[in-house]
Amino acid sequence: MIVACLDLEGVLVPEIWIAVAEKTGIDDLRLTTRDISDYDKLMKHRLSILDKHGIDINLIQEVISKVDPLPGAVEFMNKLREKFQIIILSDTFYQFGMPLMKKLGNPTLFCHNLVVDEAGKIVDYKLRMPDQKREAVKRLKEINFNVIASGDSYNDTNMLSVADRGVLFCPPQNVINEFPQYPVALNHEELFNYFVKAEKEINS
Amino acid sequence: MIVACLDLEGVLVPEIWIAVAEKTGIDDLRLTTRDISDYDKLMKHRLSILDKHGIDINLIQEVISKVDPLPGAVEFMNKLREKFQIIILSDTFYQFGMPLMKKLGNPTLFCHNLVVDEAGKIVDYKLRMPDQKREAVKRLKEINFNVIASGDSYNDTNMLSVADRGVLFCPPQNVINEFPQYPVALNHEELFNYFVKAEKEINS
Repeated sequence: MIVACLDLEGVLVPEIWIAVAEKTGIDDLRLTTRDISDYDKLMKHRLSILDKHGIDINLIQEVISKVDPLPGAVEFMNKLREKFQIIILSDTFYQFGMPLMKKLGNPTLFCHNLVVDEAGKIVDYKLRMPDQKREAVKRLKEINFNVIASGDSYNDTNMLSVADRGVLFCPPQNVINEFPQYPVALNHEELFNYFVKAEKEINS
Repeated sequence: MIVACLDLEGVLVPEIWIAVAEKTGIDDLRLTTRDISDYDKLMKHRLSILDKHGIDINLIQEVISKVDPLPGAVEFMNKLREKFQIIILSDTFYQFGMPLMKKLGNPTLFCHNLVVDEAGKIVDYKLRMPDQKREAVKRLKEINFNVIASGDSYNDTNMLSVADRGVLFCPPQNVINEFPQYPVALNHEELFNYFVKAEKEINS
């Protein structure tokens, strides 16, 4: 049996922080690791912005609940789960990801946690473990699953490297250039077809 | 974050072979490991019965598609997935389990495979690995999840022993006697309450 390991943001839903920036009108939340390369500094910056604007976890979950999956993503998931077991491997936080899981048919989600106080203020974040996508794929292979993985960016290439087959979904050009060993799918139909083809190769 | 690992047969759905025996009227399919203790001999016996009666995978899937989840199981799953990531750990086969997953909201299923020929005849079975329930729980803990597990019988006690918390669901009396260290839930409401209580203990 094959487990399909999918990145969330950029593959099934839009980038969550960008969506929050758009829906709240706070442009400062658009900053990414391209602007502040130290992830911890970036996250602390984001949390201080949320605090400054009085945005608590309830407001942010309300905002996220209005974010829709990418066009084609729901149909893709419906087709994929007929043939594969699906696990979403994402570096988002459960408090952000769970409202989106409902829209995707409630797949299993492996990600991280925000630390929220009793008043609903986001006071910190807690990564479950470093390089969790790669580690999860490794563990699935250890219990005799084959894994086909897909993601859109740098933080997915480690999981692609340990999966039986990996495919980039609508990646930026620099990722295509740096990882020419991975095929590229430009829409969900191509992505589904890649999974079917990879399954045949693995089972042959 | 906590992963809820659930056995399938006896916890969420009836025993599949018993259901197939009932729906086909073939009493010989009621034999279990209590009658033939060698699992390989039991499975070979079952496959020879299916062959003798001309029951192929399509017919058996049609039979299974008419099997309903246990009363209360669907509501239990709906409540559980609001709070936990769910993985079903079962010693059934994907060809039997998948029609049932649809009725349970499509949770991720880790189990085994039947070998089916092109005509649809079940010619063999393939266990993905020995003691797969226990191994899966161990791997989930290695990637920093806490695990609460539940099952109804002997083949679940190994996974219960490595989980952070374990609870037996409607087990036979001999399992209760032999494993007095595990609490017992007698219906899905008690089972859900146990998961909530165990979560509080783990997070405190």
